[in-house]
Amino acid sequence: MRHMDHSVRMKEMVKEIDRALLEYVRRGKYERLLRAMRHYPEAGGKRMRPVMAMLTAEAVGGRGSAALPFGCALEIIHNFTLVHDDVIDQDPVRRGRPAVHIAFDIPTAIIAGDALFARAYEVLSETDVDGEGLRRLVRIVSDTVFQLAEGQQMDVDNEERAEVSRQEYLEMVEKKTAVLFACTAEGGAIIGRGTEEQISSMKEYARLLGIGFQIWDDVLGILGDAKKTGKPVGSDIRNGKRTLIVVDALERLQGDPRREVLAAALGNAEASEEEVREAVRLLEDIGSIKHARQFALDYARRAKDLLSCLSDSLEKDMLREMVDYAVGREL
Amino acid sequence: MRHMDHSVRMKEMVKEIDRALLEYVRRGKYERLLRAMRHYPEAGGKRMRPVMAMLTAEAVGGRGSAALPFGCALEIIHNFTLVHDDVIDQDPVRRGRPAVHIAFDIPTAIIAGDALFARAYEVLSETDVDGEGLRRLVRIVSDTVFQLAEGQQMDVDNEERAEVSRQEYLEMVEKKTAVLFACTAEGGAIIGRGTEEQISSMKEYARLLGIGFQIWDDVLGILGDAKKTGKPVGSDIRNGKRTLIVVDALERLQGDPRREVLAAALGNAEASEEEVREAVRLLEDIGSIKHARQFALDYARRAKDLLSCLSDSLEKDMLREMVDYAVGREL
Repeated sequence: MRHMDHSVRMKEMVKEIDRALLEYVRRGKYERLLRAMRHYPEAGGKRMRPVMAMLTAEAVGGRGSAALPFGCALEIIHNFTLVHDDVIDQDPVRRGRPAVHIAFDIPTAIIAGDALFARAYEVLSETDVDGEGLRRLVRIVSDTVFQLAEGQQMDVDNEERAEVSRQEYLEMVEKKTAVLFACTAEGGAIIGRGTEEQISSMKEYARLLGIGFQIWDDVLGILGDAKKTGKPVGSDIRNGKRTLIVVDALERLQGDPRREVLAAALGNAEASEEEVREAVRLLEDIGSIKHARQFALDYARRAKDLLSCLSDSLEKDMLREMVDYAVGREL
Repeated sequence: MRHMDHSVRMKEMVKEIDRALLEYVRRGKYERLLRAMRHYPEAGGKRMRPVMAMLTAEAVGGRGSAALPFGCALEIIHNFTLVHDDVIDQDPVRRGRPAVHIAFDIPTAIIAGDALFARAYEVLSETDVDGEGLRRLVRIVSDTVFQLAEGQQMDVDNEERAEVSRQEYLEMVEKKTAVLFACTAEGGAIIGRGTEEQISSMKEYARLLGIGFQIWDDVLGILGDAKKTGKPVGSDIRNGKRTLIVVDALERLQGDPRREVLAAALGNAEASEEEVREAVRLLEDIGSIKHARQFALDYARRAKDLLSCLSDSLEKDMLREMVDYAVGREL
């Protein structure tokens, strides 16, 4: 019965978010630009950021709907970064559709990303919070987007390097994924007028969740079902993606002749099914996959512990379940 | 003596602006990204936007220094759009230096532009204005950047079309140039706590100045001295740039056999010196250059008229001189 409540509540929230979000990206007169801006938001998505913003605002005692514009602003920022990242990484597909720079062209993708970014701040300014609260939100959002840019730049610069240290990997995950979640929950708690302790705990909760989410995603990318992950099995291996699993394996395999088995598949677009399977088996044998899973589960546990600053509520339970979804999605 | 005061004052302001601006684009840890972000701001520039913001704030009775962060935020936004525009237009040179995407690479240019945009809002949030004033500034800045994106998209889409109407040209100038000036003066007047009448008059003053500025720039691009404009003589003609002069000429020359003289040079990268000279002579003969000059001068006059909402002051005089600089720079 309880889980039933949660799923009904979640569906209602997502419906409310979708309606607001799609209205926000329809404002304007120049149709071609608007179509490019709507391309990703209309393709769906789990709306984790607006959901988290609303749940956090309620969980600290405020109104969830007050955090709707703020949550949508962050979702719009998330989409803006996807548009530009796809240009930068030359990824032709996103959410099962052609990427913006393929469906339109590269200039339009750059401009549509910028326009989404501008729209995000316009939406942010509509958040139901007093002026000084808005100043605080503008600050944390700007700082967050700056860190997203730093993370993307590190990613671009690291691509040319064979070795990425564990610390560099974690810093990149922090900047590319965790800071946006952290900003979402921090902002939700500010809008809900939580105590300063709650605001900083919620920020840390979401930061830990974000790191766990990304590392779990890496595990799914190696072990997951292609139908569920939407990526062909082994694509992360063939693309040579530096995940925690790979970084850990390269450390463990220093001076080990089996390193060749990994090297044969990693970053080799032409690697055979068998070569990829062998590499994955090696990652399992030496414990690198287990290590990454444990690492993600540890972050998940720490994220949940931070929820103790909240009184019991439906929303608190749902924030706990978000952790289980982020870290623990089906393999 | 009076002009002496103005030029001393102007130099002091620009020095103050340069110091603040360069500090704002140095914040951060990731050096390669910061270098790309600083690439254009460090190359100089007239800082017209911060100067205008500060003068406007003073002219309505406030403190100019209160508008310094806001003015720098708009200068940073101006620089962000230059970085992305140069990628989109594949322009290899800016302010006599290699463009960001040449000095670094295209991914870095896209990311550095995004990072500048984020930094602009961070700086904006530091403006010395109350919370509701900040909300108003965030709104006008976001709306402005959205219009800049629309203008750039129109420009990209128009490039493939031979005929651009006078109305389309003016809408593009409005969005690509005038709205940012308008936002600058509007924001300066808000920060200086001007009356609502002053705020809207200053916005309109700067909008008219911006349109005049761009059209005067087009005239300079045709008639100007290469040393002063920084562009080779005839490059606008050879690039086929749709300026008011060209739009007007194509209208006047409908059904006129002399149209061929213009067609031989316009958009023809291989056009000879003689062909370009012939085309420019034709533009003079049929009155299209005179028309554009008159058009710009008319906007300049209307801009100056709007200054009547201000009490007399040094700053009011300097705002008048900014019009003469924007429209009337040496041919």
